[in-house]
Amino acid sequence: MKSLTEHLWFNIPSRRGFENITTTVEALVKKSGVREGLCLVNAMHITASVFINDAEEGLLEDYDSWLEKLAPHEPVSSYLHNRTGEDNADAHLKRQVMGREVVIAITQGRLDFGPWEQIYYGEFDGRRRKRVLVKIIGD
Amino acid sequence: MKSLTEHLWFNIPSRRGFENITTTVEALVKKSGVREGLCLVNAMHITASVFINDAEEGLLEDYDSWLEKLAPHEPVSSYLHNRTGEDNADAHLKRQVMGREVVIAITQGRLDFGPWEQIYYGEFDGRRRKRVLVKIIGD
Amino acid sequence: MKSLTEHLWFNIPSRRGFENITTTVEALVKKSGVREGLCLVNAMHITASVFINDAEEGLLEDYDSWLEKLAPHEPVSSYLHNRTGEDNADAHLKRQVMGREVVIAITQGRLDFGPWEQIYYGEFDGRRRKRVLVKIIGD
Repeated sequence: MKSLTEHLWFNIPSRRGFENITTTVEALVKKSGVREGLCLVNAMHITASVFINDAEEGLLEDYDSWLEKLAPHEPVSSYLHNRTGEDNADAHLKRQVMGREVVIAITQGRLDFGPWEQIYYGEFDGRRRKRVLVKIIGD
Repeated sequence: MKSLTEHLWFNIPSRRGFENITTTVEALVKKSGVREGLCLVNAMHITASVFINDAEEGLLEDYDSWLEKLAPHEPVSSYLHNRTGEDNADAHLKRQVMGREVVIAITQGRLDFGPWEQIYYGEFDGRRRKRVLVKIIGD
Repeated sequence: MKSLTEHLWFNIPSRRGFENITTTVEALVKKSGVREGLCLVNAMHITASVFINDAEEGLLEDYDSWLEKLAPHEPVSSYLHNRTGEDNADAHLKRQVMGREVVIAITQGRLDFGPWEQIYYGEFDGRRRKRVLVKIIGD
């Protein structure tokens, strides 16, 4: 069994933002030499997500306003977590809706994707360096 | 390491619907010959889900009305994504709540399930052909 | 390929509750002897979750009240599922928000975690014995 482990670094300049990481993950699959296997991509921080959806700017804005409705940032004092001195409780909630990780099939050496699947890093408490893990296993 | 890759096709006749795919996936596990491993089942389209829950008709209706409350289809114009000419922004949101994929353990040649676990395809923008990927790896 | 399969048992004394299972899962990774691979941890019951987030009591209470807002337990009669004689439809919904499973990379014989990642069992319909599955595969 082959395996590859890589960390991707991010520093999103605003509190929230989305970044398409599909090309980077595809290159790592190629580098791994795995022809048949699985590729795990997960946020290593608990106020961020990795998810698969559409590379369409309007939709990314829809996600942002929808998440802000489901788990608003303000009032900061409405969350018990923020009594610790943090102001990011909403980011912990938003991340649960969007998910921590994706697992993607590798078939014949490539990500086995449908026509519109794109891998996104979703940041809900940015303005600092954070990591994503890519783990590939297979033959 | 053994592996098996199969695509399942769906054409749900309404906008939204659920289909139990447990028996199909179980048959693929048997076909793979894998005794110990992992089975990934994921929607290949970004307005559909694969999830595990109960085979109970009332609950499926509860999911449908709950998702419609969290991310309503109407008014279509309230979503930026729909400016592209689509009317399915809500489907992209609903799919994030229900998830893209499940990963299931294979133990002694079978899906290692609790008493009520059933695998479902969840469609949120149907009336066209769409696919699910089943990827099995192990020994 | 090595593999290990273990079931963890829980009996949360209240309807809802959270339990940190990180240390238990870490010990199973060590026991498996896997150095490079994947670790799947999933609820085997469809009214419970396994998720990764912060070991902070305030946040766990925030999750509880947020989930109760998104999918309230009462009125029990508002859910079709509860016509079966159950009163746990809300638990099936809450579990979809928090997720069924996590997949964690194993690197150099350890869970490959960011600084604050902790594995939690989330119970939404407790007061009875329920199980979590840990499946580890790799070399």
